[in-house]
Amino acid sequence: MKSEVILLGHGSGGKLSHEMLDELIVPLLSGLEPRDQNDAAVLPHVAGRLAFTTDSYVVEPLFFPGGNIGDLAIHGTVNDLAMTGAMPLVISVGLIIEEGLPIRSFREILVSMRSAADKAGVKIVTGDTKVVPRGKADKLFINTTGIGVIPEHLEITGSNAQSGDKILINGTIGDHGMAVLASREGLELTSDIITDSAPLNGMVQELVLSLGHHLHVLRDPTRGGVATTLKEISRQSQVEITVHESELPINPAVASACAILGLDPLFVANEGKLLAFVSAEVAEQALMIMQGHMYGGQAAIIGEVTSGANGKVRLHTSVGGVRAIEMLAGEQLPRIC
Amino acid sequence: MKSEVILLGHGSGGKLSHEMLDELIVPLLSGLEPRDQNDAAVLPHVAGRLAFTTDSYVVEPLFFPGGNIGDLAIHGTVNDLAMTGAMPLVISVGLIIEEGLPIRSFREILVSMRSAADKAGVKIVTGDTKVVPRGKADKLFINTTGIGVIPEHLEITGSNAQSGDKILINGTIGDHGMAVLASREGLELTSDIITDSAPLNGMVQELVLSLGHHLHVLRDPTRGGVATTLKEISRQSQVEITVHESELPINPAVASACAILGLDPLFVANEGKLLAFVSAEVAEQALMIMQGHMYGGQAAIIGEVTSGANGKVRLHTSVGGVRAIEMLAGEQLPRIC
Repeated sequence: MKSEVILLGHGSGGKLSHEMLDELIVPLLSGLEPRDQNDAAVLPHVAGRLAFTTDSYVVEPLFFPGGNIGDLAIHGTVNDLAMTGAMPLVISVGLIIEEGLPIRSFREILVSMRSAADKAGVKIVTGDTKVVPRGKADKLFINTTGIGVIPEHLEITGSNAQSGDKILINGTIGDHGMAVLASREGLELTSDIITDSAPLNGMVQELVLSLGHHLHVLRDPTRGGVATTLKEISRQSQVEITVHESELPINPAVASACAILGLDPLFVANEGKLLAFVSAEVAEQALMIMQGHMYGGQAAIIGEVTSGANGKVRLHTSVGGVRAIEMLAGEQLPRIC
Repeated sequence: MKSEVILLGHGSGGKLSHEMLDELIVPLLSGLEPRDQNDAAVLPHVAGRLAFTTDSYVVEPLFFPGGNIGDLAIHGTVNDLAMTGAMPLVISVGLIIEEGLPIRSFREILVSMRSAADKAGVKIVTGDTKVVPRGKADKLFINTTGIGVIPEHLEITGSNAQSGDKILINGTIGDHGMAVLASREGLELTSDIITDSAPLNGMVQELVLSLGHHLHVLRDPTRGGVATTLKEISRQSQVEITVHESELPINPAVASACAILGLDPLFVANEGKLLAFVSAEVAEQALMIMQGHMYGGQAAIIGEVTSGANGKVRLHTSVGGVRAIEMLAGEQLPRIC
């Protein structure tokens, strides 16, 4: 690449576009030979139901403690697939680049994407790149869309929470949102906070294999945090959910930062966490599986599905009170993913 | 929706987000019940190889003669799937919205997307919505990613152009790019120019059924136009391509506008055209299929694959000369898709 920044011409479809694809994007993301580059990828026959999910990433800043928009975009889509019980197979990458983005940053992000994909065992097989003039986007937006294959007989869905289910989380809450916030200009929070962004498909595979149909709901509490995600599930399944604040794992640095800023960590985004609803009889087994996993050391049972088909979420607070959890109206922290 | 414009909170994942999803986006795009809304869609088993493609749309302005960013985004991805010979099945929609976008425009675009998807026979099954602050995007960007199923034994790819193949196009060139340009502020071109944006999967199905393995390459000449697309194919297949300028169908209004602006229509984007490389013995049959189709009335045989394994494209001009076609370095017309 001759230029040090992305130029409008890199999005033209002409020589500069092909140079960027051939020298930078394709070798780093997929390694596909030019001869094999068509507008669509061809995938071998897949035996089983497919999971299909899309997410666009607009996080600001592009780089934050523990990650960047690139690995975040891979983990996010891998996790959305995994939350159906699927094994992620392939991912597409759509890039919208603001003219002027330094090639050096861009390259670093692409390298992170490939590394995250390799670790999660998914292949980046197709993509698209657009460039818009300065001021018409904010540096870089990334869309990732994924396909996974769902094992037979699984029925993991937000509408499958059942009375008596135990609710588990695989670790501390609020790390990602606070890491992004901490890295924004002008905020000087403790440096102990790093994103939890991670691929959860490995852990999900273990849960699926061991628990089978006792695994009822999986969802990753991203935008809106644990509180909003629980509220969504309570509505979808028309059940009542009770959560115990004292059981919620939280990094003390995140707790302090939230206290200082007046934020509720229950509503702060996570990018390497899942909520699992499982039959009570396998809850301890699920906990042990999570705790034995590299992304689940601090896993905990945080609540249960209680009687009442009312779509409510009740939080038993550390000081002995009970409060109803509702979704926030708008933004607590904009652009965290 | 209470607000008349998109607010930052509509991208928060909280109440406003859910309101926008439940009242606007999901009913218009997919009609999925809230109970069935998970982060990933679950698709039934698909028998056959899959085609998988992604595209982001950043066209400016959002509305142009004959279409808008919404139907363009559906047609573009349907067409990229069809260019493998695939029957498009499902599409995901990733929306990045700039705060302040009028809900009225947004609704109109969503309605167009659904209508385009219905006409093309594909379902919008999953999506994602992000909102960024004013000045951080340009009104609306749309990513569409699609899955299709490829009939057995087909091998339609850019590397399959063969010596002796005839090259067909299904109609006039340059309409989309010039329609977008004409609709930009300050340009007063003739109103006879409208986009050719259209779904080509129906025509491709007919070609596939009738021509089978005689159909070697299909590609839609979007960014970079017919010239760039032919150059890509000549390189991928390592063949020489000859095109006859006098055979290229062109709308006279597009030709005049290009002449006035100093643009070469061969490099102007199309969004409802395909180039087909077929065995010489079925060329007339292919032409008749195209001409009998609603999007192929002006189809023509425009060239052939000649001897020489050199990756060159030669244009026989209307005045009797021959010129080599190379890709342009950068942008002829930025942001036409």
